[in-house]
Amino acid sequence: MGKIEVTFLGTAAGIPTKKRAHPAIHLAYTLDKEVCYLFDCGEGTQRQMLFAGLNFMKIKKIFITHWHGDHYLGLPGLVETMGFEGRKEPLTIYTPEPERTKTLLSIGYFSPGFEILYRNVPAEGSKIEKLVETDYFEILSISVEHTVPAVCYALVEKDRVRIDKEKLKSLGLPEKDKIYRILKEEKEIVFKGKKIKLEDVSFVEKGKKIVYSGDTRICENLKKISQNADLLIQDCTYFDLNDFEQDYGHASVEEVMDFIEKVNVKKVILTHISRRYKNLKDLKEKIKKYPNLEIAKDFMRIIL
Amino acid sequence: MGKIEVTFLGTAAGIPTKKRAHPAIHLAYTLDKEVCYLFDCGEGTQRQMLFAGLNFMKIKKIFITHWHGDHYLGLPGLVETMGFEGRKEPLTIYTPEPERTKTLLSIGYFSPGFEILYRNVPAEGSKIEKLVETDYFEILSISVEHTVPAVCYALVEKDRVRIDKEKLKSLGLPEKDKIYRILKEEKEIVFKGKKIKLEDVSFVEKGKKIVYSGDTRICENLKKISQNADLLIQDCTYFDLNDFEQDYGHASVEEVMDFIEKVNVKKVILTHISRRYKNLKDLKEKIKKYPNLEIAKDFMRIIL
Repeated sequence: MGKIEVTFLGTAAGIPTKKRAHPAIHLAYTLDKEVCYLFDCGEGTQRQMLFAGLNFMKIKKIFITHWHGDHYLGLPGLVETMGFEGRKEPLTIYTPEPERTKTLLSIGYFSPGFEILYRNVPAEGSKIEKLVETDYFEILSISVEHTVPAVCYALVEKDRVRIDKEKLKSLGLPEKDKIYRILKEEKEIVFKGKKIKLEDVSFVEKGKKIVYSGDTRICENLKKISQNADLLIQDCTYFDLNDFEQDYGHASVEEVMDFIEKVNVKKVILTHISRRYKNLKDLKEKIKKYPNLEIAKDFMRIIL
Repeated sequence: MGKIEVTFLGTAAGIPTKKRAHPAIHLAYTLDKEVCYLFDCGEGTQRQMLFAGLNFMKIKKIFITHWHGDHYLGLPGLVETMGFEGRKEPLTIYTPEPERTKTLLSIGYFSPGFEILYRNVPAEGSKIEKLVETDYFEILSISVEHTVPAVCYALVEKDRVRIDKEKLKSLGLPEKDKIYRILKEEKEIVFKGKKIKLEDVSFVEKGKKIVYSGDTRICENLKKISQNADLLIQDCTYFDLNDFEQDYGHASVEEVMDFIEKVNVKKVILTHISRRYKNLKDLKEKIKKYPNLEIAKDFMRIIL
């Protein structure tokens, strides 16, 4: 179905490094036309987009996971640049505590010249929220467990009924768009006196699912939203819990490995990597028995 | 006297490019010990410092010229990183309208763990303000003409009285620290019955002066503070005024060339370069008859 292109613009944790910028993930969904979203927007995201060859004018919506600086400090600069570039189309910004977004965007002398819609994303309870619904996919959220109110986001592509052309042919029906349309709309068609039902000549193509954990410990809500994901982009600040004196509300690689044995996830990309891990050899060694686990890099691209 | 090292961390105007980050200038003054200041702090400054091999923990004071996003949006991230790194030393932040700094640093969930001192820099009138005075230099400011309240900063090294050892020797005085000290403190010394005055055996070494215009049109206040500067770091957003439909409160290269014929300035570095100028050949051609004019680049270093 749709082509989903995920670009990692920043894969650092709280302190950036020469190789890793602050968190931001660009997602382009293409079916008929391209729709671009941004998940988190750490400091420097607009320049990372330049380096990645991505166009900030195409971003329709921005989703922020929580109010720690590494996840939102690129937002005002990006909005200003959109304004300088003459954007007219409204921009929707989804965050927990949206009044903070308003304050953030009103500190300096600047008015964007386009409408900004501030949307609240609930950061408590265990309900999966539907934030966006298009013809082809939904954007969902659920609260997760961090040191401050935080959420996880998911893009869930809708399942689609596809006509099985071979079956159609075997029943003698011509391959015509009109026939496909009638079958899809009316669920059946009468052809040469014979009633043919949609389910007899079709199959369901399962939509894809991508989950971005944001900053969180492994928790029940994350499990709930991650089931059957094709791609889980997972906070993995700690390679070893013993490396940290304090619980900063993140997941360790051991916890992630344990987690993915309990949820059905096709591929997991570890991100939000602490600066202390300069040499990734040890981590790679640790995860080598999980071929579906990978470590994010800035500018890494995944196509689903 | 002191060694002054200026590092350009960002030389773009409102929209950054792959080659130019948002404005920030690092200044290290070394005499006995090193003192590091930052002038403006555009988005991405902390990572630019990493690339430049500069240590953000050494920054004692930060001076912001005005409240346009390209000049301040790197501040909260830098302050957070200083906090994560365990800074204990207070940090003084100088800005016009300092209440904006307080709001900016209080949007997310973060408390720095060190004291932040918010200092007001007057952005009206034509008085030169003395913001900082150390044994060796002063930091001055004056309001300038931009579209919003804005200031210009200057580091002015103090003149120093230096003993002329040759003259001392010719008068038969021994080269001893004690003699230098008495001469400097008491302005004269009696040696073998003969009175010797400080001015007879000393000379004045002129201190250096560096001016950073911030964003401004060429104006009287800029002229006032720039007289006799060794280095003027000058807003030059426009290479040609005809390139812009509107007056955004910046200087053009023609105006700068005209200006430096009226003020005595040893060297001028043009910065805050609009994204539209990708090819600098034309500008270089334009300024070639001014050998003391240069165009800034990110990571350029000047030692005075």
